[in-house]
Amino acid sequence: MRAVLLAAGAGERLRPQFKRPKPLVRLLGLSLIERNILFLRQCGVNEFVIITGCYDDEIQNHLGNGDSLGVQIKYLHNPDWKLGNGVSAHTFRKEYQRGEKFILMMSDHIFEPDALKSFIAAAEDINDDELLLASDKRLDQVYDLEECTKVKAENNLAIKLGKGLEDFNAVDCGLFMGTGALLEALSKSIDKGAFTLTDSVNLMAEHGKVKLHFMENNWIDVDDYQSYKQCEKVLLKSLIPPKDGIISRTINRKVSLKITKLLAPTRITPNQITFISLLVSAASAICFAVSSPIAGGLLAQFTSILDGVDGEIARLKFLKSKFGELFDSILDRYGDYLIVMGMTYSWYSSTGHMTALLVGATVLAGLPMSMLFKEKYRNVYGQPFISGMHDGPLRYFAANRDVRLFIIMLGGIINLLPAALIVLAVITHLQTFYRLYNVRRQY
Amino acid sequence: MRAVLLAAGAGERLRPQFKRPKPLVRLLGLSLIERNILFLRQCGVNEFVIITGCYDDEIQNHLGNGDSLGVQIKYLHNPDWKLGNGVSAHTFRKEYQRGEKFILMMSDHIFEPDALKSFIAAAEDINDDELLLASDKRLDQVYDLEECTKVKAENNLAIKLGKGLEDFNAVDCGLFMGTGALLEALSKSIDKGAFTLTDSVNLMAEHGKVKLHFMENNWIDVDDYQSYKQCEKVLLKSLIPPKDGIISRTINRKVSLKITKLLAPTRITPNQITFISLLVSAASAICFAVSSPIAGGLLAQFTSILDGVDGEIARLKFLKSKFGELFDSILDRYGDYLIVMGMTYSWYSSTGHMTALLVGATVLAGLPMSMLFKEKYRNVYGQPFISGMHDGPLRYFAANRDVRLFIIMLGGIINLLPAALIVLAVITHLQTFYRLYNVRRQY
Repeated sequence: MRAVLLAAGAGERLRPQFKRPKPLVRLLGLSLIERNILFLRQCGVNEFVIITGCYDDEIQNHLGNGDSLGVQIKYLHNPDWKLGNGVSAHTFRKEYQRGEKFILMMSDHIFEPDALKSFIAAAEDINDDELLLASDKRLDQVYDLEECTKVKAENNLAIKLGKGLEDFNAVDCGLFMGTGALLEALSKSIDKGAFTLTDSVNLMAEHGKVKLHFMENNWIDVDDYQSYKQCEKVLLKSLIPPKDGIISRTINRKVSLKITKLLAPTRITPNQITFISLLVSAASAICFAVSSPIAGGLLAQFTSILDGVDGEIARLKFLKSKFGELFDSILDRYGDYLIVMGMTYSWYSSTGHMTALLVGATVLAGLPMSMLFKEKYRNVYGQPFISGMHDGPLRYFAANRDVRLFIIMLGGIINLLPAALIVLAVITHLQTFYRLYNVRRQY
Repeated sequence: MRAVLLAAGAGERLRPQFKRPKPLVRLLGLSLIERNILFLRQCGVNEFVIITGCYDDEIQNHLGNGDSLGVQIKYLHNPDWKLGNGVSAHTFRKEYQRGEKFILMMSDHIFEPDALKSFIAAAEDINDDELLLASDKRLDQVYDLEECTKVKAENNLAIKLGKGLEDFNAVDCGLFMGTGALLEALSKSIDKGAFTLTDSVNLMAEHGKVKLHFMENNWIDVDDYQSYKQCEKVLLKSLIPPKDGIISRTINRKVSLKITKLLAPTRITPNQITFISLLVSAASAICFAVSSPIAGGLLAQFTSILDGVDGEIARLKFLKSKFGELFDSILDRYGDYLIVMGMTYSWYSSTGHMTALLVGATVLAGLPMSMLFKEKYRNVYGQPFISGMHDGPLRYFAANRDVRLFIIMLGGIINLLPAALIVLAVITHLQTFYRLYNVRRQY
């Protein structure tokens, strides 16, 4: 399936801040149009047609043939871009292949990462004379409602569209699954002197041929500096995974998202952040070993925060990789090991108690158990281990990494490393035994 | 799909040794007929019809309605069992449902665990007027060829069968996928006074209706004490998994199969053996700690051997469970931990060197890495981690549990625990780093 991106307009309202064509405005490390290309690529779209107008050269120079993004890009230039976006969309007729369905998208509308898959799935059912339009009924959540193209919807059909529509119950998200019928409607309305996409969609809507797909994810039409900032917010918030641990959710993400926002414009990769996180663990270990428990504790918490940043950057910039996931989980084990070694050394060197060694060793054995259990469970049972389902009452104290490092931080700042180590020794093994007992009971 | 088991004969030749009906003779912990029922159940067969003759009551009393084996069993009694096994098979006509395909099997033919799945898959293609017969062309590997029913095969069709056949190129394994056509052939040949299954199969073979499935696994017709002993051998050998580590393959299995043979007739479960293996690890740790390194080393090797026995018993007695697999891998980690703790304590208490603690801790961190890596890899990449493929030159020294415990044994018996610990610290982490490097390179 091919995607047509409209990038013909002048985008005057963002010009003062960014001094570049709007599709090329960078937001959290990617230009708007790059984000949409990578977003679509993630859903399996590899061929793109970009309709340029005002800034033809700049856009072509920036994106080239698409190699650097791992896709193929063709350009069509619309010299009459000033007339309206319908004329730009109509330019695609030169490239259109009979019977083809194509995605048509504004290059400056940004969607949350999960938004597209259900849209493409819904588009399977539309016929050759129809159009599927992504729209949003959650009017209270739509950003800058006034600027949106409104839609009067009946069930899943659009009746009428228009910016000034008074009787409406949804808005147009600027994402279409087009067919040959759309190009015909564009021809007709352009012949009549009506040059916007909305004009031709209205033509099809009159015949009941505009189906609606209602979005459940957020999206933003990046039009001015306010919407640009709002878009940053929405994207950053979308990076929080649903299965976050309690410390991650309530503490770490508040900081990690800020770091992600700072790092996004740089060329740093998720794997580099993973490695830096290991270095921070080593620094934490050294601080513990040289009797600076407060610094050690804070660095332990910082490595826990960085443990979130690599994933956030990966999701934000479409850099997720299988190797990254593996690398992250192995390096985390080394980070844990170093920190606990530092803590144990601190306890032992200050007291000379053998207990310190025994507890330290027991923690070392307990640290990887949570991950071991989950990964093995998933391979054996063929389904993910879900703490909320399988950990019973222990789910509130699950000895996941965020909780373990938080305990270490507490132990550091109140200078009670022995207590922190004993707690870790108990909860990591208790959790493992309980999980065995519980899995046995459930199956 | 239903299975019909023939258990009507007198089985005189095993009577002297076992004093019980042949189907009920126990071999490696299961009676012959129980083994076949569980074997078929593993392939998805849950309904059984057992044709009894000579020992109707004994067999019914022993197996009951099948609840204890997790299947349903119906019995049909053939008072004329002395006439021949064709008459016994023909008894099934009372139960036969139009259009049904059914497995027909001798209750005293024993197959390797993998033998059945490909047979059932091949049987999908046979038509209502055909028969599929499992046969074996590997004549040099067939046990007691003289006693077998021979088959003259052309491609995958049987031309003629007979015990005394001189021109043959395969033998009949006593496993059929039957259709209504077989029951009709049985009727016809019984009417003519020909009472064996072979007689009616020959009737169908004349019309080219007997298709052959050629076995690639071993099987034994348990007929006398010699074949009984041979069957034990074949089954035990079949328990060795293809992916065995080098120490497992060359050393451990030689002992573990003997232990399995001893334990099979008892009621001990695989999970109990897993737990005993942990206790042996604890004993090894204590021996190391009280400066009996030879005993410690030997017990470490023994726990490695027991680590094979649980799986062997599970496969041999159809007791494999997902929980067992999970339980085994978690308890192995605790066993490893205890042994290394004992060794480290021994080194440290005799020298007071901090190096001992550092090395011990590094080994503790390295021990779970092999498993962690493999399990995570499998979940991330969706395919199993195969040492031979992914470990490059390190595959010969893969730090799997069998190798690790062997190094510990060597360290114990030559009384060089520090050396053993240092080797373990090096190979476990080296392997992890190499694997990361290699996975990164390959993808």
